[in-house]
Amino acid sequence: MRVIRASAPGKIILFGEHFVVKGKPAIAVALSPRIHVLVREWDNDKLMVMSRDTGYRIVFEPDSLEVIESNGELLQLKKILEELKNKKTIKPAYIEITSEIPVAAGLGSSASLAVAFTAAYSKYIGLELSREEISRIAFEAEKIVHGKPSGIDNTIATFGGAILYEKGSFTRLRVGEIKDYFIIADTGVPRSTRKAVLQVLNLYEKYPEVLKHVYNAAEKIVREAEKALERADTVKIGELMNINHGLLSAIGVSGLELEQLVHIARRSGALGSKITGAGIGGSIIALASRDKVDRVYDALRRHAKRLIKASIDWEGVRIEEK
Amino acid sequence: MRVIRASAPGKIILFGEHFVVKGKPAIAVALSPRIHVLVREWDNDKLMVMSRDTGYRIVFEPDSLEVIESNGELLQLKKILEELKNKKTIKPAYIEITSEIPVAAGLGSSASLAVAFTAAYSKYIGLELSREEISRIAFEAEKIVHGKPSGIDNTIATFGGAILYEKGSFTRLRVGEIKDYFIIADTGVPRSTRKAVLQVLNLYEKYPEVLKHVYNAAEKIVREAEKALERADTVKIGELMNINHGLLSAIGVSGLELEQLVHIARRSGALGSKITGAGIGGSIIALASRDKVDRVYDALRRHAKRLIKASIDWEGVRIEEK
Repeated sequence: MRVIRASAPGKIILFGEHFVVKGKPAIAVALSPRIHVLVREWDNDKLMVMSRDTGYRIVFEPDSLEVIESNGELLQLKKILEELKNKKTIKPAYIEITSEIPVAAGLGSSASLAVAFTAAYSKYIGLELSREEISRIAFEAEKIVHGKPSGIDNTIATFGGAILYEKGSFTRLRVGEIKDYFIIADTGVPRSTRKAVLQVLNLYEKYPEVLKHVYNAAEKIVREAEKALERADTVKIGELMNINHGLLSAIGVSGLELEQLVHIARRSGALGSKITGAGIGGSIIALASRDKVDRVYDALRRHAKRLIKASIDWEGVRIEEK
Repeated sequence: MRVIRASAPGKIILFGEHFVVKGKPAIAVALSPRIHVLVREWDNDKLMVMSRDTGYRIVFEPDSLEVIESNGELLQLKKILEELKNKKTIKPAYIEITSEIPVAAGLGSSASLAVAFTAAYSKYIGLELSREEISRIAFEAEKIVHGKPSGIDNTIATFGGAILYEKGSFTRLRVGEIKDYFIIADTGVPRSTRKAVLQVLNLYEKYPEVLKHVYNAAEKIVREAEKALERADTVKIGELMNINHGLLSAIGVSGLELEQLVHIARRSGALGSKITGAGIGGSIIALASRDKVDRVYDALRRHAKRLIKASIDWEGVRIEEK
């Protein structure tokens, strides 16, 4: 029985979230937690996908791509199968998803899934896709999930490392050998990206003369961060994270629980910490040196609903055949 | 027996602290809590000043202004007496200070004391000083306390209302009829203005390209706030306080306890809230409408070391003779 495994890393927006909406640059990095997709031949004429973590299941009729069974989740995979069907025959298979990336945490889990799924299943049916093509197909699936995704998530899940996103285009960034750790700590407070984005745009409408300068500051942070990443200067990266956090507070997306985690991280020795993602609720990211990461992790543990310790992923999508 | 009473209000920096160091404007408002100075004739040939709240005491020989007894406090009053001695004979008196303004809380208590003391004692010895002259003499006393004071504190304590401070000069601002309240909540965390100012200047040295824009944003906040104060638009004043707070966070003077108070205030219904003063430790200020001020006050009470509810003072220094 053929078995194909593929996996793709999660991502985090390190600098520039929200400001990107008004054309400012952002930096995303791939993080070590991965989503794994296993594709196995089986004695059944259906194509079944199931998630071991969530229990979600979707069953397709391979010829028609008709959904025979579903609990309303994983529907974006249909889009991927449609894209692949244009190139090759869709075959029955048993597909299992396991994830180290929590969903809805701003870690790009849906894109990681789309990338890993595309990579694994395309290989299974004998398609040799370039990374660019995997990323493009995953982007189509992301549109189903997110409406108007930026393309950051699928790009970073495919290529790994760090990318600069600016006005619709991507540049892969050179990143020095960073051996420090990121900790993502979830407040447990529900977040709504859409609500947060609209709220910020409303504030911009009301105080354009003020916010214009805040956005310019955010842009300059990204320029400084590009240099700091290349030099692996994590002291500077930390300081720039702190400044960026203040700008996110200025545009109104901070909150009590977020600030508690941000400042507990700093006080326990983090090089820097900030909201990551849309804010209001959601998560913070802290950067901690190897000798302090355990202390920061322990300090956050008492207050965070969920904690992830991660390093930068340099590899992106990975495919193995057994 | 002649008795003269004078009092002067406290102040708060509403917008622009820290940014003022690099030539940006700031807005200060006079707040209702006052320092009262009572001057009474007595059958003693000395001039004694005592603070009812702190127990501090200082005794002068009127002719020479020699300090006969002191516990090291209130020494700035000697400077005021020296200034007044140039104009009129210093007479014996019993002088009592009572304060509604906590010391070292960023509320300008030393300037309020200097203004009230100058007003009361000059009146007592028969000098009719203009407000400008009272403010000038208080400024001389402030130099003893603060080294290089900006002059904001003595100006606002003398004239009341709101002032714009910019590059060394003051403009009294028109302020509409604001009936909402300010709450000043003290974290209880010690603050060092000097340390905070140096830390911010170091950050500016390191990231001038980033911070330049943050400072520009702070300037624009003051411009918007001038208009909002004139229109008594406290919704806008609150929003601008929130943005300003984020900028203070960006330049590194926030902290866990400050953020807790800032966000508890907002969550309990404040129109806006921010660090006031140097930050790191110290106090926050929240603005709350009349119908919500009790709720905000109660919410803060559980977390603040000290709370003051205040309204804007329109009067400045006040002198009464009985």
